[in-house]
Amino acid sequence: MPQAVLLDISGVLHEDGIPLPYAVEAVRRLQEASIALRFITNTSRKTGATVYAELLQMGFEVERSQIHTAPSVIKRYILQHGLRPYLLIHDDLVPEFDDLDCTAPNAVVVCDAEHRFDYAHLDDAFQVLNQGAPLLAVGTNRYFHQRGGLHLDAGPFVKALEYAADTQALVLGKPAAGFFHGVLEEVGIEANQAMMVGDDAEADVAAAMQAGLQGCLVQTGKYRDGDERWAPDCRLESSLMSLVAALD
Amino acid sequence: MPQAVLLDISGVLHEDGIPLPYAVEAVRRLQEASIALRFITNTSRKTGATVYAELLQMGFEVERSQIHTAPSVIKRYILQHGLRPYLLIHDDLVPEFDDLDCTAPNAVVVCDAEHRFDYAHLDDAFQVLNQGAPLLAVGTNRYFHQRGGLHLDAGPFVKALEYAADTQALVLGKPAAGFFHGVLEEVGIEANQAMMVGDDAEADVAAAMQAGLQGCLVQTGKYRDGDERWAPDCRLESSLMSLVAALD
Repeated sequence: MPQAVLLDISGVLHEDGIPLPYAVEAVRRLQEASIALRFITNTSRKTGATVYAELLQMGFEVERSQIHTAPSVIKRYILQHGLRPYLLIHDDLVPEFDDLDCTAPNAVVVCDAEHRFDYAHLDDAFQVLNQGAPLLAVGTNRYFHQRGGLHLDAGPFVKALEYAADTQALVLGKPAAGFFHGVLEEVGIEANQAMMVGDDAEADVAAAMQAGLQGCLVQTGKYRDGDERWAPDCRLESSLMSLVAALD
Repeated sequence: MPQAVLLDISGVLHEDGIPLPYAVEAVRRLQEASIALRFITNTSRKTGATVYAELLQMGFEVERSQIHTAPSVIKRYILQHGLRPYLLIHDDLVPEFDDLDCTAPNAVVVCDAEHRFDYAHLDDAFQVLNQGAPLLAVGTNRYFHQRGGLHLDAGPFVKALEYAADTQALVLGKPAAGFFHGVLEEVGIEANQAMMVGDDAEADVAAAMQAGLQGCLVQTGKYRDGDERWAPDCRLESSLMSLVAALD
């Protein structure tokens, strides 16, 4: 029985801003249970404040402090190490980073930049990396699910820059063990007492299991037939309510 | 003593359209020698016809039939296999492919597309790959050298799409052994009687050696200190004239 449950957000709680069946009710029940509940996401097309506001608007009962986004972890790392980043980020994420010094960059940050992933910006990032700057990445997710289709996430662009500059990204969001452990440290619960629930069999579930948590795969969001090959500890075949039932 | 010499073009014969020292003279002398001479390039920001015209304009004595470009090999493959490609190619390469049927694509072609490497085009290519279409790539070159700097080549974008769609590109230009062998087949000379001369230690030289040719590294173009780690069979420390002297 886990003492902490970490829930991915997009594809687990909602799809395209519409709550999944019973998800609002499931979160309400989990908040009432005697477990620590946290919402963790690699989403980097919006700020943490926006993620929070959208969840409230969809009817989810969450606290701002329960939400952990990968970009916020990147920002903390930059400040701790006194780096000046070249930012490959989405327009909507700019407010999260706009108080950082980005002159004469000595680091490259790759989030899900969408339209800023163009040749000119990627080539600029390559110039910075070629001077030996570290590559900080939100994640290695291959794709995300939106409006019924799969679309390129940040991962492929991280791989492109790693290959071009013959370097290795420091991944600070999922699937990095440090992301899971950082959240659990804050709630004071060991990894082997925690469960991660996600729709990304690789970056959510297998990665959490690698980090010592239980991994639970939902069949919504980006889930596709065959994702079971990542051998999750458990699967939620219907809704999040079956998780509530299991924890009751 | 090689019976065939394959010369890379950019960074070996010229840089930014200006012939390298003694390169025009060296090519003239090689044309007079009793060896088969071919010019092979992964360049995909221009058509073969343009590559030829530019070499003539720089003063190089070459025949059109001596020039082998990777895009021309891709085109042959597409025609042989009756494929309808989604083309991620440079505007200037469009004339090379404009007689192909590109409706309802069942293959993706990645050349050095430069400004077409944007999120929308890459995501479109990803959709085609997700339907099981093959990924045909001009090469895996990490970067090229232009105007004193290194810039992203097609390779990083090939890696991005391979990772996103969990597939493996079929590389038809360098470093594919088939590219070298195809040229040598045409001139009727075995790989172990041939030498490849290039400025890309990995995609020109090491790849040719892997394909059974001798590999010779120049110290112009994209060459950088430390490229000797690829252990070329020989190096040209001054100009191409030292190759002429060695073959005399």
